[in-house]
Order: sequence, then C-alpha cells, then structure tokens
Amino acid sequence: MLRLYDYLASGNGYKVRLLLHQLGVPFERVELDILKGETRTPAFLARNPNGRIPTLELEDGTHLPESNAILWYLAEGTPFLPQERLARAQVLSWMCFEQYSHEPNVATLRFWTHAGFLAQRAALVPGKREAGVAALGVMEGQLATRSFFVGERYTIADIALYAYTHVAEEGGFALAAYPAIRGWLARVAGQPGHIPITQG
Amino acid sequence: MLRLYDYLASGNGYKVRLLLHQLGVPFERVELDILKGETRTPAFLARNPNGRIPTLELEDGTHLPESNAILWYLAEGTPFLPQERLARAQVLSWMCFEQYSHEPNVATLRFWTHAGFLAQRAALVPGKREAGVAALGVMEGQLATRSFFVGERYTIADIALYAYTHVAEEGGFALAAYPAIRGWLARVAGQPGHIPITQG
Repeated sequence: MLRLYDYLASGNGYKVRLLLHQLGVPFERVELDILKGETRTPAFLARNPNGRIPTLELEDGTHLPESNAILWYLAEGTPFLPQERLARAQVLSWMCFEQYSHEPNVATLRFWTHAGFLAQRAALVPGKREAGVAALGVMEGQLATRSFFVGERYTIADIALYAYTHVAEEGGFALAAYPAIRGWLARVAGQPGHIPITQG
Repeated sequence: MLRLYDYLASGNGYKVRLLLHQLGVPFERVELDILKGETRTPAFLARNPNGRIPTLELEDGTHLPESNAILWYLAEGTPFLPQERLARAQVLSWMCFEQYSHEPNVATLRFWTHAGFLAQRAALVPGKREAGVAALGVMEGQLATRSFFVGERYTIADIALYAYTHVAEEGGFALAAYPAIRGWLARVAGQPGHIPITQG
C-alpha cells in the first residue's frame, strides 16, 4: 500500500490526499508535526533529504518528494492529467506558478498566522502580502473566462492551486474581491470525491 | 519559428536556451530587461500575465510561461526526458526542488549581487544563504553516488539544476566544499551541444 508522510494542516499534503481520495487509491498516512521538527529527524531525512512533507513512499520502498511531482505521478493515465502535449505543459506551468509565485506567499502567511510567527517575521510580511495579492490577481484573470485552469476540465492544476487558495483568508487574503476565483473554488469543491483539508 | 522571451543573465532563461540548442531547434530570442520593467509592460503582460521570463511563444501564438514547464514541453519524446513513469516523476520532483528550495535562494542572491540590491535587502540575506547552503547539501548527497540526478543519464532535471548552480559563486556560495556537485557540473558542461549562460 502507498504510504504518505503528511501534516494535516499542510495544503501541500492536502493536494495529495485529495487526489488519492478522488482516484479511490487506498493509502496509509503518517502524520509528522513539522513544528516539532519531526520532518528533520535522521529517520525522515533518510526518506527525504530535503526534510519536507508530503513524501510518498511507493510499494517498492522508493520515496517521492514534492507535492506537484507526486500529483503528476498519481495522475498519469487518469482524467486528472490531459493526454495532449500542450495541455500537459500548461497544467505543469500552472503547478510551477503555484509553487513559485503563490505558495511562498499565500501559504506562508497562513502558516505564520497559525504558528504565531507573524510578529517575529513582520519585516517579511508586506512583501509576501503584495506577491500573494499579485498571484491571486493572475488567477482571477485566468478564471474570468474559464471554468478550470486548463482545457475546461478539472485537472491536477486545479488541485494544486485549490489547496492554499481556499484557505487564503486564514492568512489574511480577502477573497471577496475575486469573484472568478470564488466561483472556481465552488466548482472544485463540487467535484466527485472531494474531501476537506481537515480530512486525513 | 518558436520565439523565446528571455533575459540573458537569467538562469531560468538559460535552461530553455540550453535545451533548444541541444535539441537543434531553431528559435528567435526576444531580450527583455527585467531591471527596466520590460516584463511588466501591458504588451508583455498580455503574453504572460505573471510578467516573467522565460515565456515561450509557440508557432500558433500560444504563450507558455515557467521555465520548467517549457523544458518539459520541449523534452517530451526526446532523450532528455525518460519514458518510464517513476523516472519522469523523479525528474519533475528535482525540478520542483529547484524552483522551491534552490532558485529562490541560490539564484536570488546572485541576482541581488549583480543588481546591487544586497545592502537594501540585508535582513533577508542570512535566511537565503542558509536555505541555499541546505539546497546545495541535498544536491551533494544525491550526486555522491550518481552521475546525474535521475536514471544515470542527463535529463532536464540536470539542466534545471545546472542553470543556477554553475554560477552559484556569483552569489557568494563557495562550491569548493561540494566535490560531487563539481564533478557533475563538469559532466553537464561536457554534454554535446552545451552552450554557456552568456550565449543567446
């Protein structure tokens, strides 16, 4: 059985959980508390030298880190990843956007809020706020004329971007100003097999 | 003909230039000076709303942003991207590592050094220095027992990680302490069709 090293509050972990549920693939979940250093122990660093969840352990014992690479691995050959070359690259492009322009800002401010780090990192907050608002603006523009990010169907690009966008308000990003994003969030949440971020 | 919106000093742009040269695919290069705001003009934002290079314009006028998604698009069906499902996911995993754990630290300190931003962003430098050293450590560990990142052959994972690693010393990261990385840099530079970052 697949084993997912995970942290329940993590949107990156949630991406993988959500897709596994929607694919109907059984898996064992191992919860690691990143705030207690449980991803930086020698035992876990032997699984992922970068010390991060999610990491997927395959049935042959191989460990695959990086949420979006795990999504890609699991979605190959399923309706969650298009077959066509350009559409596949566009899915990947939005996933790269998520990890570079969105997650380090939208997810990080949520994490700092939850973990009580906002005050000690106050100097970094305005830059991350501005970059997060810019990322949400790019998403709003794309979704203004589309139902989903690529090819008018629900793909792992939507899963990747949903994970931290639907909880962006926990990091102080008001979504009222983004009607296209709010409509898309509702479409994603209405997909068969959807689970909330709080479900393991 | 393919058209690449690019900035010569950018390692992200270089990734794409290098692969296009190695594939023997002709392309037109459009230089945009990111320090002069040329990627934030209305004309360029219509091509890539996220306002970043590299962006690849396909022959049908479609614009594909994100360096690693462009590499994936170009490498499909070539020896630069494996066919096997797990190896493909591992290539993508290292590319995600590059964009999340490596580039924002190793590349950013190089850019700030070149652009003269180090003093005004001094508060951010130690964190980026520490994270960059950690990323180089993860690379050194992987390369200690391998010739290339995935499957003992040169792939787009190597191209993605080579781009900013081979110029890491320009950002103050000394590579003397990383013998496995230095051996790998030489192997990558020795691949057929290799070009330097200074070549358009």
